[in-house]
Amino acid sequence: MKFIDENYLLNDETARRLYSYAKQMPIIDYHCHLSPKEIYEDRRFNNISELWLGSDHYKWRLMRSAGIEERYITGDASDKEKFLAWAKTLSLAIGNPLFEWSHLELKNYFGFDGVLDESTAEEVWKLTSEKLKEVSARSLIRSSNVKVICTTDDVTDDLWYHKEMAKEDLGFKVCPTWRPDRVLYIERSDWDVCIGQLEDLSGKHIESFKDLLSVLDERIEYFAQAGCKGADQGLPHIPCETYTEEELETLFRERREGKTLNEKQIDQFRMALLCHMMREYHRRGWVAQIHYGVIRNNCTYLMKIFGPDAGGDNIGLSGSIDSLAGFLDELDRTDELPKLILYSLDPNDNTAIDTVIASFQRGPTRSRIQHGSAWWFSDNYDGMRDQMRSLASQGYLAGFVGMLTDSRSFISYARHEYFRRVLCGLLAEYVNAGRFPNDEQKLKKIVEDISYYNVKEYFGF
Amino acid sequence: MKFIDENYLLNDETARRLYSYAKQMPIIDYHCHLSPKEIYEDRRFNNISELWLGSDHYKWRLMRSAGIEERYITGDASDKEKFLAWAKTLSLAIGNPLFEWSHLELKNYFGFDGVLDESTAEEVWKLTSEKLKEVSARSLIRSSNVKVICTTDDVTDDLWYHKEMAKEDLGFKVCPTWRPDRVLYIERSDWDVCIGQLEDLSGKHIESFKDLLSVLDERIEYFAQAGCKGADQGLPHIPCETYTEEELETLFRERREGKTLNEKQIDQFRMALLCHMMREYHRRGWVAQIHYGVIRNNCTYLMKIFGPDAGGDNIGLSGSIDSLAGFLDELDRTDELPKLILYSLDPNDNTAIDTVIASFQRGPTRSRIQHGSAWWFSDNYDGMRDQMRSLASQGYLAGFVGMLTDSRSFISYARHEYFRRVLCGLLAEYVNAGRFPNDEQKLKKIVEDISYYNVKEYFGF
Amino acid sequence: MKFIDENYLLNDETARRLYSYAKQMPIIDYHCHLSPKEIYEDRRFNNISELWLGSDHYKWRLMRSAGIEERYITGDASDKEKFLAWAKTLSLAIGNPLFEWSHLELKNYFGFDGVLDESTAEEVWKLTSEKLKEVSARSLIRSSNVKVICTTDDVTDDLWYHKEMAKEDLGFKVCPTWRPDRVLYIERSDWDVCIGQLEDLSGKHIESFKDLLSVLDERIEYFAQAGCKGADQGLPHIPCETYTEEELETLFRERREGKTLNEKQIDQFRMALLCHMMREYHRRGWVAQIHYGVIRNNCTYLMKIFGPDAGGDNIGLSGSIDSLAGFLDELDRTDELPKLILYSLDPNDNTAIDTVIASFQRGPTRSRIQHGSAWWFSDNYDGMRDQMRSLASQGYLAGFVGMLTDSRSFISYARHEYFRRVLCGLLAEYVNAGRFPNDEQKLKKIVEDISYYNVKEYFGF
Repeated sequence: MKFIDENYLLNDETARRLYSYAKQMPIIDYHCHLSPKEIYEDRRFNNISELWLGSDHYKWRLMRSAGIEERYITGDASDKEKFLAWAKTLSLAIGNPLFEWSHLELKNYFGFDGVLDESTAEEVWKLTSEKLKEVSARSLIRSSNVKVICTTDDVTDDLWYHKEMAKEDLGFKVCPTWRPDRVLYIERSDWDVCIGQLEDLSGKHIESFKDLLSVLDERIEYFAQAGCKGADQGLPHIPCETYTEEELETLFRERREGKTLNEKQIDQFRMALLCHMMREYHRRGWVAQIHYGVIRNNCTYLMKIFGPDAGGDNIGLSGSIDSLAGFLDELDRTDELPKLILYSLDPNDNTAIDTVIASFQRGPTRSRIQHGSAWWFSDNYDGMRDQMRSLASQGYLAGFVGMLTDSRSFISYARHEYFRRVLCGLLAEYVNAGRFPNDEQKLKKIVEDISYYNVKEYFGF
Repeated sequence: MKFIDENYLLNDETARRLYSYAKQMPIIDYHCHLSPKEIYEDRRFNNISELWLGSDHYKWRLMRSAGIEERYITGDASDKEKFLAWAKTLSLAIGNPLFEWSHLELKNYFGFDGVLDESTAEEVWKLTSEKLKEVSARSLIRSSNVKVICTTDDVTDDLWYHKEMAKEDLGFKVCPTWRPDRVLYIERSDWDVCIGQLEDLSGKHIESFKDLLSVLDERIEYFAQAGCKGADQGLPHIPCETYTEEELETLFRERREGKTLNEKQIDQFRMALLCHMMREYHRRGWVAQIHYGVIRNNCTYLMKIFGPDAGGDNIGLSGSIDSLAGFLDELDRTDELPKLILYSLDPNDNTAIDTVIASFQRGPTRSRIQHGSAWWFSDNYDGMRDQMRSLASQGYLAGFVGMLTDSRSFISYARHEYFRRVLCGLLAEYVNAGRFPNDEQKLKKIVEDISYYNVKEYFGF
Repeated sequence: MKFIDENYLLNDETARRLYSYAKQMPIIDYHCHLSPKEIYEDRRFNNISELWLGSDHYKWRLMRSAGIEERYITGDASDKEKFLAWAKTLSLAIGNPLFEWSHLELKNYFGFDGVLDESTAEEVWKLTSEKLKEVSARSLIRSSNVKVICTTDDVTDDLWYHKEMAKEDLGFKVCPTWRPDRVLYIERSDWDVCIGQLEDLSGKHIESFKDLLSVLDERIEYFAQAGCKGADQGLPHIPCETYTEEELETLFRERREGKTLNEKQIDQFRMALLCHMMREYHRRGWVAQIHYGVIRNNCTYLMKIFGPDAGGDNIGLSGSIDSLAGFLDELDRTDELPKLILYSLDPNDNTAIDTVIASFQRGPTRSRIQHGSAWWFSDNYDGMRDQMRSLASQGYLAGFVGMLTDSRSFISYARHEYFRRVLCGLLAEYVNAGRFPNDEQKLKKIVEDISYYNVKEYFGF
């Protein structure tokens, strides 16, 4: 097979036929880290290094593994030197998703059909520099057939850009997502800063846990009015701790007085606050997302030099599966469990998650609790297949809301193509093994639903 | 390939040839939850909903995931309405084993060769209703070429049905299995009830741990006389705790006085009682089965409305692999480890289990300690393959006792066909990759052994 | 496909072409347990049982699983009887790597092209007995195209054989490896013996932790002068514990006075000593290897009769991934992290390890931190593939140092062939799926690097 040609990842006629449906579907990128400001200002790019290497710590990690010196990764080398170092890194990176994604992006956005390596780097640099003169953030989004983008926004954000963009006809919608992590991480010093900002925004003193809930409820309403339809939380592990109101108020007071909370108190706070917000999401029909099982900033060296988001992260303890079941039950027992997408960073959790969520499904919502698409380090070929095979075996793959980019890049929509190719390849395998009938209408519906309609209906776009 | 035709799951000539041996083998279903009463009374079924949807919480979970409302699952909708809801659920359930098993059952027991969905549901309802007039529990078992059924029976069961059936020539044997879970779960309120029943049955007061052992020994003898050849235990995790006789008697007395035991005491009791019984099984040549790594009744809503076995279960913490090794060693060091089949619900445990059991194998029994077939949520295509590939890599697949239904249904024997097809497909892969010689006699023996002869010899049927 | 013919494990033209490069590469066996004495004395073998069954507890485990009685495994049966029992065991051992390795060895070293089973055992016994008259330890190594062998040597070893062999031209190099396990396991009674031996060797009293470090530093220098280029450590889990110098001296004194240390103290000692040595390795440019996640001697029966290394081992708790990240960071924060190869026995750790090591890669060394090849129970077809697929997805497979035998046998180099075939099969899959270009020069370089050049450069041979 030719390298990423039209049949890429589609090993047989069935897969190719199914992909012909998938590729026509628009994209709803329901979770990403695009900058609303950059979309609003319709950012332009001088060269492909800006687009590719400016903040992509996935790529930085691969460059370090290939022995590239830090100067050419995050240091003072020129954009072009960094690009050449990346080309060198990429040339032998067999099996790494960045190899495939980068080439998909070169093909889809720059019309480059070859292979990027040291011998072609100069040509690619020129070609991409030329093409980048013609494109901008918005044009890239539009040409990717994107209908909705959900950004990720701090609870204190004024959502000014979202509001302004809502007045225009961009050809796509940009919705904010409520991201309360700074409030949830009571053990961090930034928590005090965040509480202070919330006091300023609300004009109220936050002197108790109850005060905090009340201010957050106002902010949630503010987000809702700006078109927000969901929340995202990033947690080390799923909390499952009991508490009394008195305990909450005590720990809140202690924290405000500068005391260090113990592990139990931290989990009590996180459990209580998260449950309160989850009930609010449920009331509003929002979709909650929870990402967990990660250790951030594991590397003092990287943290010191670059701060967070520099590539010093790893799969961490995702906690016991009992906690996940207990957490869901706490909300379900009073029928206040919102639509929820769960992502663990640890692929070992796949099957256990699928068995837990099946206990908490309830009609008439199709797949009310979702096992989120393979996340972060796992969103590669094997990771995506494993997540979908587990979901299919344990549950109802046809109800899956599918892919998201989780990205800061305006051309990472190639990952949706990647996902859809993997999906169609997998579905074709079931058909070819005689495990599902070769029924065009059923298969078409499954492909189109997972590519587009499921997420559209689930969020209510 | 046509949907579940004769070559279903058999991708090449080798696999097909091997399956021609497998399909002729009788079935020994050495672990199931069929009702001895229903076999004795030769139960008949009015419609396929009774057979399929009456108590199958696997199917309920899938229906909920597909967005079916509870009324059509466990509620007051009619049997036919429930069947239609199931047909709707099934129509898009690609990759779920229930899709394949249901169609295998329709094909094997009702001669239906098509696909069940909303457009064929009416036809299938009529066809199955007609056919069900001609069949009964016993005729279904006989037509499935089943030679032995091992039911699962509480320690207090009088085994009346088993004894009565032993007098008849059914065309198959029905053996009881000793299931002491109610006695092992000392932390549950039902434990007191069970002790009371044991007192009534034995005519003795159970005032000490020692008394309990003595009464249980009598019951084990009672089971043995009724043809029992094995025991099954379902545990949250494998216990591995030290204890003294004094500690056991103290905790027993405390529990009888109504005190709540702590975790350590519970594990001490479970370890001591289980080890005592395991030694008894060893003395009698019984086969012990231990199922672990499950959390039951995780969902308060389902538990409140339906009680247990309603679909509120998940893969749970299976405990440390150290405990498993320690538990086996405790019995092995005095040469009192019985034949034992170990099933963890967590597929992540596969390789570790295989490395532990290899330490405790002893001739002349072939594969004295067995890694049980992929269990419960894991007994699907990927789950079965993973368990067998791990067993083959770490140990001696040829000695494997193979498949069981673990089912309440009289037509779930289709799962044995499913297993045998997966097995033959896997063996053929080894041959086709040049990893095992294409030697007809060796392969035939392996297939027939795993399908039938191993379990026959292992249990001594 | 014919059983292990020239296309064994190479399913397509691409794989075969790539293997044509791999098979020409020499072998650097950078971690094994060959006896330097036996190489020095150029040991000869009377029969294949001596070579195969004398100490290979992998094979013993499989024989026990197949129901062979202990007398024919480790007992007083004759070498020929044991060989016949092994032939019987092997005949049905489909999917077990020993089946394939044994046949590769028969083919490569004895020219036997058939299948070993009860019907051919007599012929194979004769054939191998004849051929063994012509070969010796050194001739087997030379005929395997081995360039370097790294043995595993206790800290107290005088390395006499290594020094003597360094004077000769063997056609291959034999380097010692520093193995400080006896010093690291402070909780064992053998620790006292080892400290005594170190006192004798150094002529110094070891009265403090500081004394111990100083004596070990001398020994490391002694090893370096004998050509040592690396260290290997076998640990139950990666330690990550803080400590003060005072705590270390206190626990050292307590231990010397005969007190039993608690878990925390043991981890403090292990962490401190290991970090000290790691810094020394870093200073010298050595390669550190750490093997972890194993429980040894789990079976009292085997331990009593045979002592350690009798087949009573299993995958154990490999500890939290947090500890691994913390341990690496402790050394990296002062830029004293040496080149390091990490092996967990638990295949579930693969992805997490790959995400951790990517945080600690630094140029200009290519893949400074390595995810070691699938280890011990996992070095089979699925295990090797899983380790490489994970490494490729998360990192830079092209920088991988590849295979080692970890073996006591002079003919286990067949495992390098096995590994290279698996590698080429995997690389071909990426190409055939259109995931990497079919670029001869790039693929050739990747194959040759992983087979030979990476390890040569990494160790500096």
